[in-house]
Amino acid sequence: ATYKLLLLPGDGIGPEVMAGVQTVLAALAETGLAHFETEADLVGGSAIDAHGKPLSNATLAKADAADAILLGAVGGPKWNGVAYEIRPEAGLLRLRKDLGLFANLRPAICYPALADASALKRELVEGLDIMIVRELTGGVYFGEPKEITTLPDGSKRAVDTQVYTTAEIERIAHVAFDLAGKRSGRVASAEKHNVMKSGVLWKEVVTAVHARHYAGIELEHVLADNCAMQLVRRPKQFDVLVTDNLFGDVLSDVAAMLTGSLGMLPSASLGAVDARGTRKALYEPVHGSAPDIAGQDKANPIAMIGSLAMCLRYSFGLGEAADLVDGAITAALAGGARTADIAGDGSKVLGTRAMAETIAAE
Amino acid sequence: ATYKLLLLPGDGIGPEVMAGVQTVLAALAETGLAHFETEADLVGGSAIDAHGKPLSNATLAKADAADAILLGAVGGPKWNGVAYEIRPEAGLLRLRKDLGLFANLRPAICYPALADASALKRELVEGLDIMIVRELTGGVYFGEPKEITTLPDGSKRAVDTQVYTTAEIERIAHVAFDLAGKRSGRVASAEKHNVMKSGVLWKEVVTAVHARHYAGIELEHVLADNCAMQLVRRPKQFDVLVTDNLFGDVLSDVAAMLTGSLGMLPSASLGAVDARGTRKALYEPVHGSAPDIAGQDKANPIAMIGSLAMCLRYSFGLGEAADLVDGAITAALAGGARTADIAGDGSKVLGTRAMAETIAAE
Ligand SMILES: CC(C)[C@H](C(=O)O)[C@@H](O)C(=O)O
Ligand SMILES: CC(C)[C@H](C(=O)O)[C@@H](O)C(=O)O
Repeated sequence: ATYKLLLLPGDGIGPEVMAGVQTVLAALAETGLAHFETEADLVGGSAIDAHGKPLSNATLAKADAADAILLGAVGGPKWNGVAYEIRPEAGLLRLRKDLGLFANLRPAICYPALADASALKRELVEGLDIMIVRELTGGVYFGEPKEITTLPDGSKRAVDTQVYTTAEIERIAHVAFDLAGKRSGRVASAEKHNVMKSGVLWKEVVTAVHARHYAGIELEHVLADNCAMQLVRRPKQFDVLVTDNLFGDVLSDVAAMLTGSLGMLPSASLGAVDARGTRKALYEPVHGSAPDIAGQDKANPIAMIGSLAMCLRYSFGLGEAADLVDGAITAALAGGARTADIAGDGSKVLGTRAMAETIAAE
Repeated sequence: ATYKLLLLPGDGIGPEVMAGVQTVLAALAETGLAHFETEADLVGGSAIDAHGKPLSNATLAKADAADAILLGAVGGPKWNGVAYEIRPEAGLLRLRKDLGLFANLRPAICYPALADASALKRELVEGLDIMIVRELTGGVYFGEPKEITTLPDGSKRAVDTQVYTTAEIERIAHVAFDLAGKRSGRVASAEKHNVMKSGVLWKEVVTAVHARHYAGIELEHVLADNCAMQLVRRPKQFDVLVTDNLFGDVLSDVAAMLTGSLGMLPSASLGAVDARGTRKALYEPVHGSAPDIAGQDKANPIAMIGSLAMCLRYSFGLGEAADLVDGAITAALAGGARTADIAGDGSKVLGTRAMAETIAAE
């Protein structure tokens, strides 16, 4: 079968790391393990520059028709002055929302070769392997009202609304418990039920889904503030961590940073499984657009190439091809290949292109 | 002058660490530097047990009449089944809201003697001294609607509302800039303006207050998720960090945990300065009620005693007495006094009482 992949490089270092994907895809085609039809399009600031909005309807239609989407990163100071409704991030948020990509999987893995790059002591992060399951289409990101109004005295009032329904919490809880079943069998669920009604409902529904369907899985509830602390104090206590959109944004960034491997971490955003057994999916690095190093051939393409591996595995069941890509990343690292962000004292530093070529060669 | 101090020990380890304050107050009275009338009352779970609610009107009236309040900690699994409206935390939230304690100052200081207790590498945290300024009476903690409703199909929908007005943001910005003027002259402001309208207004108002009144202070805007990352990666880049109620809850916990000195960190919650030049104020440790070690004479009383020192300084201008208390803490630590949470290999471990007595003796 030939699959249709939509490539959305986006802004900043996005185009450079996406070029790494093209390099690896070419190598993969030669192995005969996987064939793709790829098409590229614009999202974020680059789409604003071209069309005046961060995601055109035509691009959204292509995304909807594709078998999977790979995205680089969006945003940067260049678009700081742009109106809220058409800012670069709105393009990414619309993709998530309109394609129903409610389940964001963010692995936080500490690569042994890079454990010393972590801010944490080696023994605390060595072997770390957390899977953060973040709800991605609900909560304060999308709830209405979301507005700024002007008060009689001319000052302003801003409102955002956090909304969660039973159904939204149930489906993300299922994703977390199912994943835990294939991993260590432990789930931690983070919210602020001591302050937020959405936290009360979150805890109640996760507890009910657990009781009804997942007797074999261990469930622990943790307050989001304490969870952030515990991630710093003793991260290996966590395996699967399920949480809402906003807490997930912050906690997954903390977890990613702990590993010392931020430039290495991929993520998947998945929709519901449909009648044909397929699901919409978007894969992107956890890191952002890093405008400060954009266009300098300095970015680490591993998170983006790892996102391709995740895509092969989750969207297409191409385990062998995915293993080949993951193995090539590991081999390149074992061979001493390093981009600037993960270089130790005395290691030879490769650029984005050279790193992608090293991986493709492996 | 004799000041009126209201002591609210609360739950868990609260009563034990508050006993430490009494020990130190007695020693302080002997020096002649400070005299207090103290009265104790209930808050949180202990108040639920006694009155069926976490803060009685009588206690609130006493808090309103006091010159300052010292609070231990609230909450614990014992009250997990209690209705949302009367849970232990509601008592603390009502104190904050009804007394108008909008400015929560949370210093994250790494004590040199304890740098090795941090999860982070010593060089990243040694000398760390961040002041987090958290908005405490607005945002998603108090915005309406805040409710769970039942949908036609019997499932539920939970809503929390994040609200911020220009005036609320202005007054907390002033607190942050004023503090920065007495420190390094740098403020970082954290929000999610790329996703939240309250973040857009927050950034706009902080920028305006800065431009109008604080030309000499350096202001940097940082996204809350990136801020959490940067706290882990390179915490010493921050000096004063101002943020909203919910992000402040999470970020201040991360910052506190970084220091390795969680049991040592006090906090102040301040109201507006009134016509008489005084302001309402509540002082409490950053740590929680730690039910797992409650009643075992194991808790570290230093954060609570440090909260007394903050109270002497901020509420009463008793700098000399505050220095004496802070100096006694430092001296006790330098003399090798350690509670279990901060004990290194081979150090002699003191209980809560013995630690408080050591500090009082100094
Ligand atoms: C770019 C931004 C809108 C986005 C988010 O807040 O979700 C990013 O931080 C992320 O975590 O994917
Ligand atoms: C106890 C709880 C309501 C409180 C909060 O969320 O503000 C606590 O976590 C804190 O940070 O003081």
